Amino acid sequence: MFKKILIANRGEIALRVMQSCRELGIGTIAVYSTADRNSLHVKYADEAVCIGPAPGKDSYLNIPRIIAAAEITNADAIHPGYGFLAENADFAEVCTSSGIKFIGPTAEMIRKMGDKNSAKETMIAAGVPVIPGSDGLIRDAAHALKTAEDIGYPVIIKPTAGGGGKGMRVVHESSMLEKSLVASQNEAHQAFGNSGVYIEKFVDRPRHVEIQILADQHGNALHLGERDCTIQRRHQKLIEETPSPAVDEQLREKMGAAAVAAAQAISYEGAGTIEFLLDNSGHFYFMEMNTRIQVEHPVTEERYDVDLVKEQILVAAGGSLAGKNYLPKGHSIECRINAEDPEHGFRPSPGELKVFHTPGGHGVRVDSHGYASYQIPPHYDSMIGKLIVTADTRDEAIARMQRALDEFIVAGIKTTIPFHKQLLKTKEFRSGSFDTHFLDSFTFIPDNE
Amino acid sequence: MFKKILIANRGEIALRVMQSCRELGIGTIAVYSTADRNSLHVKYADEAVCIGPAPGKDSYLNIPRIIAAAEITNADAIHPGYGFLAENADFAEVCTSSGIKFIGPTAEMIRKMGDKNSAKETMIAAGVPVIPGSDGLIRDAAHALKTAEDIGYPVIIKPTAGGGGKGMRVVHESSMLEKSLVASQNEAHQAFGNSGVYIEKFVDRPRHVEIQILADQHGNALHLGERDCTIQRRHQKLIEETPSPAVDEQLREKMGAAAVAAAQAISYEGAGTIEFLLDNSGHFYFMEMNTRIQVEHPVTEERYDVDLVKEQILVAAGGSLAGKNYLPKGHSIECRINAEDPEHGFRPSPGELKVFHTPGGHGVRVDSHGYASYQIPPHYDSMIGKLIVTADTRDEAIARMQRALDEFIVAGIKTTIPFHKQLLKTKEFRSGSFDTHFLDSFTFIPDNE
Repeated sequence: MFKKILIANRGEIALRVMQSCRELGIGTIAVYSTADRNSLHVKYADEAVCIGPAPGKDSYLNIPRIIAAAEITNADAIHPGYGFLAENADFAEVCTSSGIKFIGPTAEMIRKMGDKNSAKETMIAAGVPVIPGSDGLIRDAAHALKTAEDIGYPVIIKPTAGGGGKGMRVVHESSMLEKSLVASQNEAHQAFGNSGVYIEKFVDRPRHVEIQILADQHGNALHLGERDCTIQRRHQKLIEETPSPAVDEQLREKMGAAAVAAAQAISYEGAGTIEFLLDNSGHFYFMEMNTRIQVEHPVTEERYDVDLVKEQILVAAGGSLAGKNYLPKGHSIECRINAEDPEHGFRPSPGELKVFHTPGGHGVRVDSHGYASYQIPPHYDSMIGKLIVTADTRDEAIARMQRALDEFIVAGIKTTIPFHKQLLKTKEFRSGSFDTHFLDSFTFIPDNE
Repeated sequence: MFKKILIANRGEIALRVMQSCRELGIGTIAVYSTADRNSLHVKYADEAVCIGPAPGKDSYLNIPRIIAAAEITNADAIHPGYGFLAENADFAEVCTSSGIKFIGPTAEMIRKMGDKNSAKETMIAAGVPVIPGSDGLIRDAAHALKTAEDIGYPVIIKPTAGGGGKGMRVVHESSMLEKSLVASQNEAHQAFGNSGVYIEKFVDRPRHVEIQILADQHGNALHLGERDCTIQRRHQKLIEETPSPAVDEQLREKMGAAAVAAAQAISYEGAGTIEFLLDNSGHFYFMEMNTRIQVEHPVTEERYDVDLVKEQILVAAGGSLAGKNYLPKGHSIECRINAEDPEHGFRPSPGELKVFHTPGGHGVRVDSHGYASYQIPPHYDSMIGKLIVTADTRDEAIARMQRALDEFIVAGIKTTIPFHKQLLKTKEFRSGSFDTHFLDSFTFIPDNE
């Protein structure tokens, strides 16, 4: 087993990884930017190394500095968390060539799944359903038109690089195709330095349902059910839950088997997530694979009573999953608590946390790096915590989430808490019947909390 | 079901009860003393009524004011929490005569169990093992001497009223008996206004193991296993866990059956706890029954995945426990986080909580009314929170508790956190082999944290 793990991340996920390390008796090394010197992950780690100023490229994205920090401190493994370098194949490669275990899949697997086009080809080969789409990247307008006619409108144009919805365009008729193609290519070029785009059948009113998988170095792979991440605002997940209100046991087994087949097809290692679009007839299509721990992993941990970060570490150390069996129980929901102002288009609301009281009681978990007097730096992701509740049924979990949100007190900055409170009251959310566009038609009313 | 419940308590238990009320859709009414006006239970309740200044008799122990608050706010039930009026039969009686449901057993049951002597008689009648002792209260020195000779030294003299170790005397030989008897009677008279004492066989090196029971108004009673509360300092519990390292399935069933028999013998209603002394040969003896929710109830909630306060409310509303079956899983430990200075005899350490960060992650629960900038009033119990962890095994739970204690940051006051950290490292605690006197020989070393 590893003696020391360096956590190449910040915020709640850095703390989260350290929790598992400590429980396993593994030493922890934090890296931090100067903007984060008062962060809890620095305080909680056994050792901490400053790796530069706030801009990502000078610290959390700076591979040489992180490797140097690992070498100075004799780390024998690096956990990348999510975001930053978590899906950077070069980083995984440098770790390996420096004799440091990267806790995650190999560079080759990351590359294969990181490029949307090659990921799709891999999935087709593994027999996983994919959305009908262009044969590779779009070569020119004629190729785009031919593809769209073959698969039928509406279609969506998507950049092969990047994520988060940037550069995507939905096209409903042929007259609009060329213009949208050019716009998408330009935006992709600006955002990711890669203007490659592909075209897919646009699945109308879909749900986002993803499967959590775990795979070891010995060929064992298993799934831990689904997470429903349909509640999104501009492709940013806000609420996640498991089980999905739209997935029954039969569909779960089908999606799970597809995800495991996909993982085994590439000899995957570690924790990973296969994201699917689910239409309202129960057809599901591969969207992408995330080769890392997800923000929303705690709902799976609670329903399956498993520590996924521990499993990542154990698998990275060569441990076996053979014979492991995680039984689900109850219903878990996560609300992301972001330092954002829902009254004003969710604009970031950095600043000082003047009051910060987190809820407790049975079935409530809070993963947060926040504390009263903490100055939220403006440089990073706005998420300051995750509130996860678990109960026997979805209705009870919603009731529990509502009382926990009521109990969560934050002052000094704006947060998504009042937004969640309102959203949880809607008949759509309560019924479980909604799609990824639900938030487009949901209006937050500031005084109505 | 009740529409509104008044919570006749403060601190974490007031919050805890409100959590369950909210999840059940029941309105909550806080009562508070002027010293508690900035307390979270006041903020979190739907309505709040100030019932007077800090001294207990003028607020939380003042029955007429609490009943008045309930009447003004149209509460249809009162939850007493623990401490204060929770085991006050007169209060239960006044609630009933005011047409307000007291969430707990009837005044008659409270009286029967509140008097140690009548409780013991009830248990003997129900076939529950009790410690051999005097035939009722000690009448005079001759009666004491005869009793001690009959049951054999060492014996312990105990007041029939009160609790917390006040007035108790262990006597190892007959020459010391009369002097100890007088001292015990005097102390009991001063502390409780009742000089009645009884004598019992003194069980050397015992463990404190208690059984959680639930009983409804329809004659159904069940137990939810044991809690081991052996880690005590001067009869004050500091760490509780379930299962007990000293109890196997066979003993659990035996103790559970005895506890259920006891509850059924008095037609008990609500949640209750039967406390036993367990000697190292597996013999157990009834100590006392607590006719209320216990401080340490969360460890049972986590291991049995049940909300005991909800069960209390449901049973009080006439609900049935028929067919309910709670299956245990894993190991839960609770550490009490008290505003006390372990360096100086655990003296209370009230004051301002300057920093207050509570741990998170899988298997961690925090029940607390603390928050940064909160002024802990000097008038009340020093407990500011409870840290509860759950994991598959006792060893994993200890590792989880250690990392959670490391993550718990409190500044501004002294707490029991460093004490717990050290205690959890001892070979005695880790082996599970200790008795109620363990802390007498454990020395906290301030710099050794």
